Amino acid sequence: MTTPFIKQYLMTAGPTPLPPAVSQVMAEPVLYHRAPAFIEVYARCLERLKKVFQTRNDVLAFAASGSGAMESAVANLTRPGEPALVASCGKFGERWLELCEAYGADATHLDAGWGSKVEPADLDRVLGESGHFEVVFTTLSETSTGVVNDVRALTDVAHAHGALIVVDAVSGLGAVPIPQDEWGVDVVVAGSQKALMCPPGLAFASASEEALRRAVDRAGPRPFYFDWQRTAAGQRKDPPDSPFTPAVTLFMALDVALRSIEEEGLAEVHARHALLGTAARAAVGALELELLGPEDEGANVVTAIKVPDAVDGARIPKMMRDRFGITIAGGQGQLKGRIVRIAHCGYFGAFDVISTIAALEMTLRELGADVELGTGVAAAQRVFGEADVPAAAPA
Amino acid sequence: MTTPFIKQYLMTAGPTPLPPAVSQVMAEPVLYHRAPAFIEVYARCLERLKKVFQTRNDVLAFAASGSGAMESAVANLTRPGEPALVASCGKFGERWLELCEAYGADATHLDAGWGSKVEPADLDRVLGESGHFEVVFTTLSETSTGVVNDVRALTDVAHAHGALIVVDAVSGLGAVPIPQDEWGVDVVVAGSQKALMCPPGLAFASASEEALRRAVDRAGPRPFYFDWQRTAAGQRKDPPDSPFTPAVTLFMALDVALRSIEEEGLAEVHARHALLGTAARAAVGALELELLGPEDEGANVVTAIKVPDAVDGARIPKMMRDRFGITIAGGQGQLKGRIVRIAHCGYFGAFDVISTIAALEMTLRELGADVELGTGVAAAQRVFGEADVPAAAPA
Repeated sequence: MTTPFIKQYLMTAGPTPLPPAVSQVMAEPVLYHRAPAFIEVYARCLERLKKVFQTRNDVLAFAASGSGAMESAVANLTRPGEPALVASCGKFGERWLELCEAYGADATHLDAGWGSKVEPADLDRVLGESGHFEVVFTTLSETSTGVVNDVRALTDVAHAHGALIVVDAVSGLGAVPIPQDEWGVDVVVAGSQKALMCPPGLAFASASEEALRRAVDRAGPRPFYFDWQRTAAGQRKDPPDSPFTPAVTLFMALDVALRSIEEEGLAEVHARHALLGTAARAAVGALELELLGPEDEGANVVTAIKVPDAVDGARIPKMMRDRFGITIAGGQGQLKGRIVRIAHCGYFGAFDVISTIAALEMTLRELGADVELGTGVAAAQRVFGEADVPAAAPA
Repeated sequence: MTTPFIKQYLMTAGPTPLPPAVSQVMAEPVLYHRAPAFIEVYARCLERLKKVFQTRNDVLAFAASGSGAMESAVANLTRPGEPALVASCGKFGERWLELCEAYGADATHLDAGWGSKVEPADLDRVLGESGHFEVVFTTLSETSTGVVNDVRALTDVAHAHGALIVVDAVSGLGAVPIPQDEWGVDVVVAGSQKALMCPPGLAFASASEEALRRAVDRAGPRPFYFDWQRTAAGQRKDPPDSPFTPAVTLFMALDVALRSIEEEGLAEVHARHALLGTAARAAVGALELELLGPEDEGANVVTAIKVPDAVDGARIPKMMRDRFGITIAGGQGQLKGRIVRIAHCGYFGAFDVISTIAALEMTLRELGADVELGTGVAAAQRVFGEADVPAAAPA
């Protein structure tokens, strides 16, 4: 049983914990979305988003969950009956498939399997043998498994076959590098509630000029709320204007969160996430537990750990939450009960990982696993102690 | 020029001001959307929404602007090439037309004109002479003009012709009565940022069983994010589950706001809005200004006032904001510069109206109109003084 008197720690990959300044700004008086005070916040957010996406594109903002931005890409880029390729490795990658089916696109599924990476060579093979695809949909950080794909290589392969590539970076953007313009990624979608350190409710799509042009040329019924053209036209006005009432408190939060990312520095933010991921994996190794995905120094968003055979996996998140106040996620879909997932994307520091590993050790031991207390913690401590980058999230 | 040292008053019809307890709860720690602490909030919001919609339907909730819920109705209920009737009287009514066009429905437009009501007799005539329409789209409170339509009568007319009726109640719900089940309204859509006293970012659609069935039977490409079936299936689970990450801070706010509406009592909330509207219209009359719409004791959401010929209308909202810190809205579209709009839907009390009228008098006088200071204020004071219902919004 949860008691409200246990200090709570949120260690899930969305919603993620918020810096205090982000939480506080939402309690300020609501602004009229056409008043100068809000327009300033809105315009600044749109500029700051470009820096995190590392792009000159307009980053289109929607009041929606991350799936809304994913839908915007499918709705704007596919046509009923036309072929599209979905290259997935988990639950969220398969959402692309559901979306393509909803919109009537003729989707081919390259399924790398839950816990594996999408291999560029496999993408090359499928694109080569299966006729002409105009769009490839894939994932940066697959939140259901912790796997982070090599988007740079996948982009090169897609382009070699004349296809655009659309990347779900909902949990990855702001945690691991995806320099959109440098890598030439055609479309990157993201959400507010992961590494961007905001509550859920804002979704983003950064589309290249070529992708926008393709969206405009699209025949037949068009989306309305998720129409890229409508949103781009509004955001390109001076001052920028949202075609629908923007979620003003969430933009106020985003403005503060993006300022924090700027102040820490995007490279430093990525380095901090790399350190958190390295420490988590070191702890898993020291505890002689298995990672779900490949040992990968780039998988720094979510650490997915296989549950030892002796333990009932479904009980771990429940006991960690109810006994220790630490909320982690279990497995989804086919991985239900088989893994636990510790997130470290966003407002996380060394002692979030250390506390979570400590609670995991206590929980596994209580559930009958052979765990020596402190072993994982010590491994994480060594990683943080030896690091030359700060391990703490900014205040 | 706005200075940050002028005390600010938000008198627009969305975003609207929030009760302090609603603002404060958003600064509390973010909850994981699958944790018991949030599920409790979410389930309670879904139940509380039914009481405000006065329905036994599931009120489907989306992370979106109000237009997203409107799109959900068009996407789920229309089919490309099939006839639909849009009965509008302003900018937001015309959004139904844009949505129908986006989805390829064959829309007929009954345009009552900006500032008029949609007359049930006109709806009856058009439905009678123009073949069979399966769906009528219309508006409860037309935010662009202040007009409130007689939804009860329009519903009866639509049903007499065998059509479903879908009502945009984004700014009306929680301000003026729309007892959905009693009147038999097939679909009511609403948003969080008007009379529901929350920030923008949540949108709602309450669809009858018949409307849901029609949505399910719909052939061809389906929406995904705005699919009623998917959201209804999630919300009907025990405990209820959102198919996409819900906007948790906005649900935390909604929970507090809906509790406030329950505590005040829905009938009392409607009576308070009626009083605010009556006082605003009395002030307009005493100032010998003209209302845009018909003199209507049911038009209690927004009071739209024609700008006197001697005055440059665009300057009024700007001067009220910059000199007096009071944000009202001007006219939109064809009414730009010709009206000003004072909202009183949501967290508003007597002295919000009195302060706004006082500032309007000062502004009009400064811009060259022949206004005797205090005339409008006194008329509003008399209305509030004689009323036997409380004029203050709940603390």
